Amino acid sequence: MPENDKQSLSMVTCTAPVNIAVIKYWGKRDEDLILPINSSLSVTLHQDQLKTTTTVACSRNFQQDRIWLNGKGEDISNPRLQSCLQEIRRFSRKRRNTGDSTSDVSGVSHKVHICSVNNFPTAAGLASSASGYACLVYTLSQLFGVENEQLSAVARQGSGSACRSLYGGFVQWKLGEQLDGKDSLAEQVESESYWPELRVLILVVSAEQKSVGSTSGMHTSVETSQLLKYRADVVVPSRMEEMIRVIRERDFPAFGELTMKDSNQFHAICLDTYPPIFYLNNMSHRIISLVHRYNQYYGETRVAYTFDAGPNAVIYTLQDHLPEFVQVVRHFFPLEVTQAHHVMIITLNSELKRDINMEPTPKGIRYIISTKAGPGPCVMKDPNHHLLGADGLPKKSVISD
Amino acid sequence: MPENDKQSLSMVTCTAPVNIAVIKYWGKRDEDLILPINSSLSVTLHQDQLKTTTTVACSRNFQQDRIWLNGKGEDISNPRLQSCLQEIRRFSRKRRNTGDSTSDVSGVSHKVHICSVNNFPTAAGLASSASGYACLVYTLSQLFGVENEQLSAVARQGSGSACRSLYGGFVQWKLGEQLDGKDSLAEQVESESYWPELRVLILVVSAEQKSVGSTSGMHTSVETSQLLKYRADVVVPSRMEEMIRVIRERDFPAFGELTMKDSNQFHAICLDTYPPIFYLNNMSHRIISLVHRYNQYYGETRVAYTFDAGPNAVIYTLQDHLPEFVQVVRHFFPLEVTQAHHVMIITLNSELKRDINMEPTPKGIRYIISTKAGPGPCVMKDPNHHLLGADGLPKKSVISD
Repeated sequence: MPENDKQSLSMVTCTAPVNIAVIKYWGKRDEDLILPINSSLSVTLHQDQLKTTTTVACSRNFQQDRIWLNGKGEDISNPRLQSCLQEIRRFSRKRRNTGDSTSDVSGVSHKVHICSVNNFPTAAGLASSASGYACLVYTLSQLFGVENEQLSAVARQGSGSACRSLYGGFVQWKLGEQLDGKDSLAEQVESESYWPELRVLILVVSAEQKSVGSTSGMHTSVETSQLLKYRADVVVPSRMEEMIRVIRERDFPAFGELTMKDSNQFHAICLDTYPPIFYLNNMSHRIISLVHRYNQYYGETRVAYTFDAGPNAVIYTLQDHLPEFVQVVRHFFPLEVTQAHHVMIITLNSELKRDINMEPTPKGIRYIISTKAGPGPCVMKDPNHHLLGADGLPKKSVISD
Repeated sequence: MPENDKQSLSMVTCTAPVNIAVIKYWGKRDEDLILPINSSLSVTLHQDQLKTTTTVACSRNFQQDRIWLNGKGEDISNPRLQSCLQEIRRFSRKRRNTGDSTSDVSGVSHKVHICSVNNFPTAAGLASSASGYACLVYTLSQLFGVENEQLSAVARQGSGSACRSLYGGFVQWKLGEQLDGKDSLAEQVESESYWPELRVLILVVSAEQKSVGSTSGMHTSVETSQLLKYRADVVVPSRMEEMIRVIRERDFPAFGELTMKDSNQFHAICLDTYPPIFYLNNMSHRIISLVHRYNQYYGETRVAYTFDAGPNAVIYTLQDHLPEFVQVVRHFFPLEVTQAHHVMIITLNSELKRDINMEPTPKGIRYIISTKAGPGPCVMKDPNHHLLGADGLPKKSVISD
């Protein structure tokens, strides 16, 4: 529902979340349509900690489509960006032509200005393409009146995992069967309120070197890994069923174990790729080791890790175990920068420290983000949130040097 | 052919080589008999650089079986050691009873003293169990008159990969089909003189922490890795055929690529194990990266890596490319200790250095061993080589503090 629709400038601002897969997406069967070789499942993270905010304006006065990302003008001709723009405009025109739309969709023939910012630094090493494309597509849909059920196929064409950021809570992306990808869509498994005790920590580690990007990495894996096809065809289908079941049962030990196994298998596939891809570094290995030793101490899976295409750990745990585990992490990985935490400070059990039996590694973890599952994209009604000014250009506060 | 057979003490000394697999053995279908889930193939390394030397003496005066490893008395009751001793004695008695033996095998009823040393430090992180058990079994067979074709089944029961150290050159260990393991044997594919240009470098890296042992590691992999069965049943059989073919064709690029892929897949399986096993560390990753960049510079596979259950790299290359690659390694990984090399010193091509584009990592590699394919076990005729004295106890020079 665009505002200023009586004026020459229509503008909408939305936010969208990051998601972290627990059954990993790795490998495309169609590179143009971004169709995956296996289904995947993720937890949408709360936007209080991590989100993308996007303003899209359209006006008959705009000369061309333009985009600013994190305060910098970028090239709008990026093919994936173009796919999303074209698809949304196509859906919008179709709706207008069939008379379905109740909103003013005249803007669809106008050029757009897009301005998008993340509330987390790129240096955090968190993939921003999922929240970024989800936010872009959702915002465009609000401006041009496109129905929600069509959006995940559009966001998917920006960045595969972006389709999962269109919903809150627990979200699966079904691989689909059709050649045109119309059934390769995200859908919510359970909402963010279904399992309120679930907590998420992001341990941002000090990366030494830039890894292979996920697009080229998964391409090389599909071309060269003999194990990947077996994973996609045989392992993942049963893991998807099991993951949905353990989420519905709120069975943390089973959820955690399956999450860790699937993360490990994804990184195994990266290693089976030729040349091999390494996303985990020594710090990631130490975090993995710490998690297993912590769980072993308690004789149950209280904490689980998952790693995407980089060395940062995402930790799932339950509310009750969060304060102690944060203390354990801070003990074994003294932080580089002092950081205020919203978690209770507790004294660590010395038997636990002794049993974990690891040398502390200072400066290995740069900082910790503490969050939980959260909702899908939101429309920001307050015009103060717009990133573009009345002139259709980024507000001063948005511009970076 | 034992010497001193007229006296009360019979003594034989033999040496046996290390082998490095290019198609990896990982996973047992029978833990007691040490029967593998897939065939494997290795290159036997020359004993000029790496070998185990073992003296076995038997005497009616010995009160019990005893063993000294690298100068220290060890527990002879180790079950795998016992398997080897029992099996060799069983074969020897069988031969005596059927009248097959031409040698004096009366010693089989006597107790033995075993003394074994490696000419490489344990700290080198090279598995010594293969050369160690191969040498033990071979030496016992010389003392007790057991035929060679029966030995690989005995050595296999000491340490799986030991069966491959009973032959020189290129050796396959066929997994076999029988439940009793009688057809799970090593055999020579080609001798060490078949491909004289092949060279081997061992890059001993600075390990930070002790890894999971291979016995317990492969047990956990068989129990937990969903990918391992697929590797063993589907991937390895065709790789074995291909590896034998490319060795016979002396096709280094194909040999190197397959060697690297199989090393990577083995480590992928370790990562797919739960909890995951990491044998490669950041230094291993850097060496892998260096090899790929070096090959990329030349547009062909001139150098190949393989890694066993630890972070040390074994590099295969051809004689012609050895001097330059050693210089490349020394440039990017300046050695901790100055080391004399038997390789020609050359000045590195600056374009190559620039194209490899890596930051040098000082002290990452502790030392380099330069070797090639070599022969199987040898009998040492010269009594000066005996590690045991006339009293049946280790010579002074063998004892460690």
